[in-house]
Amino acid sequence: MRVSELGEFPLIDRIAEIAAVKRPDVIVGIGDDVAVLETQEEGWLLAKVDSQVEGVHFRRDTISPRHLGRRSLAINLSDIAAAGGRPQFALVSLALPPSIEVGWVDELYRGLREEGDRYGVAIVGGNLARSQGGIFVDVFALGRVQRPHLLLRSGAKPGDQVLVTGTLGDSAAGLSLLSNHSLSVPAEDREFLLARHFTPTPRLAEAQVIAGSGKATAMIDVSDGLSSDIGHICDCSQVGVRLWAERLPVSPAARSVARSTHQAPWHLAIDGGEDYELCFTVPAENAEELIHAIQQETGTLVTVVGQILPADEGRWLVLEDGKQVPLEAKGWDHFEQLIKE
Amino acid sequence: MRVSELGEFPLIDRIAEIAAVKRPDVIVGIGDDVAVLETQEEGWLLAKVDSQVEGVHFRRDTISPRHLGRRSLAINLSDIAAAGGRPQFALVSLALPPSIEVGWVDELYRGLREEGDRYGVAIVGGNLARSQGGIFVDVFALGRVQRPHLLLRSGAKPGDQVLVTGTLGDSAAGLSLLSNHSLSVPAEDREFLLARHFTPTPRLAEAQVIAGSGKATAMIDVSDGLSSDIGHICDCSQVGVRLWAERLPVSPAARSVARSTHQAPWHLAIDGGEDYELCFTVPAENAEELIHAIQQETGTLVTVVGQILPADEGRWLVLEDGKQVPLEAKGWDHFEQLIKE
Repeated sequence: MRVSELGEFPLIDRIAEIAAVKRPDVIVGIGDDVAVLETQEEGWLLAKVDSQVEGVHFRRDTISPRHLGRRSLAINLSDIAAAGGRPQFALVSLALPPSIEVGWVDELYRGLREEGDRYGVAIVGGNLARSQGGIFVDVFALGRVQRPHLLLRSGAKPGDQVLVTGTLGDSAAGLSLLSNHSLSVPAEDREFLLARHFTPTPRLAEAQVIAGSGKATAMIDVSDGLSSDIGHICDCSQVGVRLWAERLPVSPAARSVARSTHQAPWHLAIDGGEDYELCFTVPAENAEELIHAIQQETGTLVTVVGQILPADEGRWLVLEDGKQVPLEAKGWDHFEQLIKE
Repeated sequence: MRVSELGEFPLIDRIAEIAAVKRPDVIVGIGDDVAVLETQEEGWLLAKVDSQVEGVHFRRDTISPRHLGRRSLAINLSDIAAAGGRPQFALVSLALPPSIEVGWVDELYRGLREEGDRYGVAIVGGNLARSQGGIFVDVFALGRVQRPHLLLRSGAKPGDQVLVTGTLGDSAAGLSLLSNHSLSVPAEDREFLLARHFTPTPRLAEAQVIAGSGKATAMIDVSDGLSSDIGHICDCSQVGVRLWAERLPVSPAARSVARSTHQAPWHLAIDGGEDYELCFTVPAENAEELIHAIQQETGTLVTVVGQILPADEGRWLVLEDGKQVPLEAKGWDHFEQLIKE
């Protein structure tokens, strides 16, 4: 059987079965977005690796190396944020075609440095190798979490509300603009959506408020698409979920792309990945206070988009007309989908 | 200017200039083989990433995925060993062509697990991405070092002796066998050399004795080739060196390949990389006792191959006829050389 026939998540399950070990110092190993490690001190060490592959995650002719550097680090910091942690260090492994311009590499590292400086992350090492194909950027990030603040995919309980930060679908809308040059949207909307696509903001400050509150029960960053990512929470927490399409927060700019491409705005929001917003669950009685605290501290919009159900009640999406349809994970799978941009 | 015109090490220097930060919690950052990080506890955290790229480091038709997995982890553990540390965790980032067999990936992870189990290393996470070219295996390893045991490239002093563990040139000899099928060597020599090439042994136990002695002044693993790696020690320690060709430890199996390929055995030993032996420096008065301790504890051969000179006395290789020639780094440079196998 080929990887393309199996799909990414079953492949991860196979790998976990082969390689995951149970040890008291591995708090969370293979299977979550971040590794949580006992290191005999107050907090836990967080370790995370994520890649940007040319022709798969990016095209050299559409993203600048500076933006690629920022993005490559940001997507890792987002995972550390979603665990309730603070990032500290990063290592960068690059595979490059020998023909690449040095200036391109300089700019990539400037972007990495820029993003690192913004969030207190030192780039402390890495590796360089030759690629016979395109460019591979592997960023490895390390951080710390105070033990009571750790948030995982598991932990959501029936009755919890499902919340998201910011707006969803902006990155997917930006991608539409890149692949369809004839789409007509106002210049400032285009700029906003491309920035959301190329240089997502890891929600570190928001995550600190959420984790510090002690009220949230589970958290994940929206990287594959909300339909996939809430599915990860349901899988790991052994719960069901009901989301409301009309409550999904969609920016005016993404709405204008949705109009131009003749799709419902919520459709962009639920399946479009790479927004790197936070999706988290909170007992209903604590939601309002936490939303207020996040908005007070960070100014970031927080929206209730659904509720957690018992596992046997299933996973549902309530459409704008009130009709309920099964919630299907339509996010990104590396070995099934076509190139995204 | 292209990367291929600049070369790997000048490129690392450029990257360090752009991205390296001075912070009290970054003990060693970009530029050494391993990152050493302050984490407010007794020891330091060690972090290391290294890649195996198809067509550059390996060919799918010559190395089994099991061996590739072992090798991918071993080369990282070797760097942690060379810093005087003990490895604890690893993360694996893979980019795979969608057409690859799942069984191939299973076997890769079995090799990773096997090597990890051997040295107490838990694989705690990773990433999967699609590759449009060949296979990329990026392994990120974390370990700990007791602060007084930390050994770096810097620290060698004039008068120190230069020592190496094991034998050098075996991996290069194994590579010769792979690329030249007509070479005639005894079957057991072939088996030994291919094993040395495909599944190098990280010298963890030996490194623990060396670091624990408190006598060694600098250490590196021989990955690029001794002529390059001792050059790194000279660069970082600001010293010179004299090596003796006739003292370089070469196995009988590698000697038989040297004979078949009409080259001097020391030539394989000094420029052939990927042996993952340790090269370290010790004040002359402590060398004998340390050699004895390593051999007592581990049974591993240790050989004095040279001595450290003041920087202004240069870097020299004394040939078998007593003639002294400048020591030139002829090891591996990713952006200058052809594919090795």
